[in-house]
Amino acid sequence: MKPYPMLQVALDTVDLDTALKTTRLVHDVVDILEVGTILCLAEGLGAVKTIKTLYPDNIVLADVRVAEAGALISKMVFDAGGDWISVLSSASLATIETVAKEAFSKGGDVQIELQDGWELSKIHQIKELGIDQLIFHKSRDSELLGPGWDPELLRTIKSLSEQGFKVSITGNLNPSDMATFAEIPVYSFVAGRSIRDAKDPRGAALQFQSAIQAVWS
Amino acid sequence: MKPYPMLQVALDTVDLDTALKTTRLVHDVVDILEVGTILCLAEGLGAVKTIKTLYPDNIVLADVRVAEAGALISKMVFDAGGDWISVLSSASLATIETVAKEAFSKGGDVQIELQDGWELSKIHQIKELGIDQLIFHKSRDSELLGPGWDPELLRTIKSLSEQGFKVSITGNLNPSDMATFAEIPVYSFVAGRSIRDAKDPRGAALQFQSAIQAVWS
Repeated sequence: MKPYPMLQVALDTVDLDTALKTTRLVHDVVDILEVGTILCLAEGLGAVKTIKTLYPDNIVLADVRVAEAGALISKMVFDAGGDWISVLSSASLATIETVAKEAFSKGGDVQIELQDGWELSKIHQIKELGIDQLIFHKSRDSELLGPGWDPELLRTIKSLSEQGFKVSITGNLNPSDMATFAEIPVYSFVAGRSIRDAKDPRGAALQFQSAIQAVWS
Repeated sequence: MKPYPMLQVALDTVDLDTALKTTRLVHDVVDILEVGTILCLAEGLGAVKTIKTLYPDNIVLADVRVAEAGALISKMVFDAGGDWISVLSSASLATIETVAKEAFSKGGDVQIELQDGWELSKIHQIKELGIDQLIFHKSRDSELLGPGWDPELLRTIKSLSEQGFKVSITGNLNPSDMATFAEIPVYSFVAGRSIRDAKDPRGAALQFQSAIQAVWS
């Protein structure tokens, strides 16, 4: 593992080819390729299979946001070659446990996406299942509310990190946001449009990596 | 609208062809064809398009369980010809509102899937957005816990129905379960494996309809 945060590009495109326009330029600059919920729904999990086939050296996250039917969805994701799978914090513990079981049996990992109203007690129950990855994000639909990160949220993120969670950060991030998280051993930063929609996606990804290294090295 | 509950078949198959083996037999017996989360993830929303193309007289539900990115996912669903879309009760109100806006502008409808821990206050906020469809279910992963419906849950379902909600019921249902809900004007019953895995799927669907008519007519 790198001593500094990993970089993840979110492929939230409405078709596979559009995603590949980004991946061919950035796959060797980023650590994690996220097959976003949008892309999973647009193309099916065949998109995960194609991305992993093309880029076996990247971690491939299937951002399917499991709420139910954990056993079957996770089987489909890992059979398709996914490395990581996302599960909603509102999923039942029974669902989360079935996903963890499937993931760990395949050498994969599970990310818990913290939704509005998540509770610390549940997060600790989830940790007892062996899951330590948490995703903090601003809702896509809440992004309209404005830039910046709430100081209280930053304290929460730092505290969970100190409790042994691997914390990833997402939500309209730019390289200049990296310094905001300087005191936190962030596990990964997720960038979507700021890489995909850049004139020079590879340059944008390199800027993220430079910013990360400037803050954490 | 029929004076008695509608019947929905859940197509939670891992490929489209397996789903079509069921639909060709039951489409004119059931009211609603549900393209399940599993099938949406397996094949992408092209499955919704194919099902609606084949069966324009059925209501087609895309059970995508929106948690985030409501605007884009709902646009994809309604562009594919879906009539209804499902949204998780844990989604933010901002997300739910964007889905409702898109759905209503396309003449579609929105179902709220009530997850463990749902709160009445939020359901009322959702109703103010114009959404009145609620799904009560046993979690697939909780189904192992046993048959039967909790009397307190039945009272809750009845109460919400009296408050003007259109209530649908799902979770390992059989025709013999219909009588359990006799005092509730249920909007629809969702059957999955009990139709799909029956030796005679059409016969199984007809048995559901007979049981529904016996209780409600």
